[in-house]
Amino acid sequence: METMQPIITMDYGSGGLRTAELIDEILLPAFGNAALNDLGDGAVLPDLGGQPVFSTDSFVVTPWKFPGGDIGKLAVCGTVNDLCMAGARPLYLSLSLILEEGLPTDVLRTVVDSIARTAREAGVQIVTGDTKVVERGGADGLYINTAGIGVLRAPGLGRKALQPGDAVLVSGSVGCHGAAVMMARGELPMEGNLSSDCRPLHELSAAALAAGGVHLMRDPTRGGVATTLNEFVEDGSLCIDLEEDAIPVDVAVSAACDLLGLDPLYAACEGRMLAVTASESADAVLAALRALPGGEGACRIGTVGTERPGKVVLHTPLGGSRILGKLTGAQLPRIC
Amino acid sequence: METMQPIITMDYGSGGLRTAELIDEILLPAFGNAALNDLGDGAVLPDLGGQPVFSTDSFVVTPWKFPGGDIGKLAVCGTVNDLCMAGARPLYLSLSLILEEGLPTDVLRTVVDSIARTAREAGVQIVTGDTKVVERGGADGLYINTAGIGVLRAPGLGRKALQPGDAVLVSGSVGCHGAAVMMARGELPMEGNLSSDCRPLHELSAAALAAGGVHLMRDPTRGGVATTLNEFVEDGSLCIDLEEDAIPVDVAVSAACDLLGLDPLYAACEGRMLAVTASESADAVLAALRALPGGEGACRIGTVGTERPGKVVLHTPLGGSRILGKLTGAQLPRIC
Repeated sequence: METMQPIITMDYGSGGLRTAELIDEILLPAFGNAALNDLGDGAVLPDLGGQPVFSTDSFVVTPWKFPGGDIGKLAVCGTVNDLCMAGARPLYLSLSLILEEGLPTDVLRTVVDSIARTAREAGVQIVTGDTKVVERGGADGLYINTAGIGVLRAPGLGRKALQPGDAVLVSGSVGCHGAAVMMARGELPMEGNLSSDCRPLHELSAAALAAGGVHLMRDPTRGGVATTLNEFVEDGSLCIDLEEDAIPVDVAVSAACDLLGLDPLYAACEGRMLAVTASESADAVLAALRALPGGEGACRIGTVGTERPGKVVLHTPLGGSRILGKLTGAQLPRIC
Repeated sequence: METMQPIITMDYGSGGLRTAELIDEILLPAFGNAALNDLGDGAVLPDLGGQPVFSTDSFVVTPWKFPGGDIGKLAVCGTVNDLCMAGARPLYLSLSLILEEGLPTDVLRTVVDSIARTAREAGVQIVTGDTKVVERGGADGLYINTAGIGVLRAPGLGRKALQPGDAVLVSGSVGCHGAAVMMARGELPMEGNLSSDCRPLHELSAAALAAGGVHLMRDPTRGGVATTLNEFVEDGSLCIDLEEDAIPVDVAVSAACDLLGLDPLYAACEGRMLAVTASESADAVLAALRALPGGEGACRIGTVGTERPGKVVLHTPLGGSRILGKLTGAQLPRIC
């Protein structure tokens, strides 16, 4: 005799009894807090005591689980990190689930646990949410949206703050998330110790800001380091000069990208930050990053310049250089 | 010769050039404002000057267009109304799109225009967003998530504020949204002048609060009036007595529900509000609602009592009564 595996059915999205069951049995036990437990249409929160920062991301990564994380961890890190990069202390998340009929309830529990664990780690509360269910074939398992509210602690960050001579830093090796997801898809004919860099950046970003002299922070997710750096300087009078041999790429990531014909500079990171700092602040920021878990590999990879306005220029060890454009096409679809 | 219809491709979700095109050509022209134009990872907003209220909803309605609205209008109204019902003035929305490869670009433009128009009507700004693309078959056209931030203007609303003798009001006829979507699906063998009630409730809720004596507001979306009223009293010592012949149901909705074997009391509304007020405030709140567009049909439908703790009791014109439970099963899947 086989035991039936419990699955999500359309009833769970009705707004009726089954929806209430899902909330009471799976969601509240994982996330319960004063604001959420009230189950109003919206969460009433304490005064922020400063300017709100607001961000959102939807997550459609496939497969839902990969070395180093899963769609739940990613959904928390993605929005938490966006808030951090905007100079905020992340405080509250909303969580909206689009579930596919037939999703094993155990998968949902695993993802919800992962969300709860990562939220605790990042110091944020899940205070409001929503659940929808679509028919079989309508959502590839599950999609997740999070939105987040933080309070601004570092005003004035942004592209406009960049100055010629600024240092370009990265908190660790690049492209791990992209490579790990490709491995999880079975698109690599190798067994590697690839693991996603997926992690919340609340401590690293706070430490960088405390060290001083930070002009701009971003996490290089979709499109990778190359695309993100292009966004820093496009349509402006500045350029970024990157030193190819200064950019940290793990051997396994490099090998995986070689096999797939990809460039690690365009592969997504989900727990790395790029920081542009005043030149004289670079060493202090690097020291602050290196002192923290996830920042041990922080290093300087380039400099803001003026020679090639609007461009990102990669300088090779042999003295050559080439322009790194934005990602064209969909190098790595559904990476987050 | 046929002209190729422009469609969304996987490239639009890459985070690279095509994503930037989508943002620059379709999204920014529709929503542009100072916070969004900055295109940082998060939107930095002005101090709210009060307590934040935070809410989110994902929208998976099928079909994407129906009489009286579309998924874009619904996505704005849904979250705006949740904020309003929680006693907030809605201020800011995030917008996250999950697009299916192959979606005609014209459909996206239509939906985006609808979002922009409804946001203007409701007085909210779209300040941050995200776009993902999934392969053909992965999202039934498009799914939308909105999250919203408002500022609390009426503290103390909630189930705990209910008192025996309180009046139960509704701002207009019930079940129109559910019936209109079913008609759009071609599930009704009739041509009717059914139209969704989908609309932002910012003015109606503000007017009700200004009139005074409001204890609780909710919009009866999924699960309809019956399910929402159950949530007001479940697990408590109060009940709600409804007068069946006082509940406004449009003739076309009634006919459609008859044909489908549905009960209008369980059909979704997306632009109606239930308000529970102190008995002596009911007339003033009704007058305030009736003076506004969308509130012309406001009426009193019941009373908070104590006889059947935790229950919603429907009293029929002939003197009978029956318990209205929460919706069981998925009466109307993907209604919002």
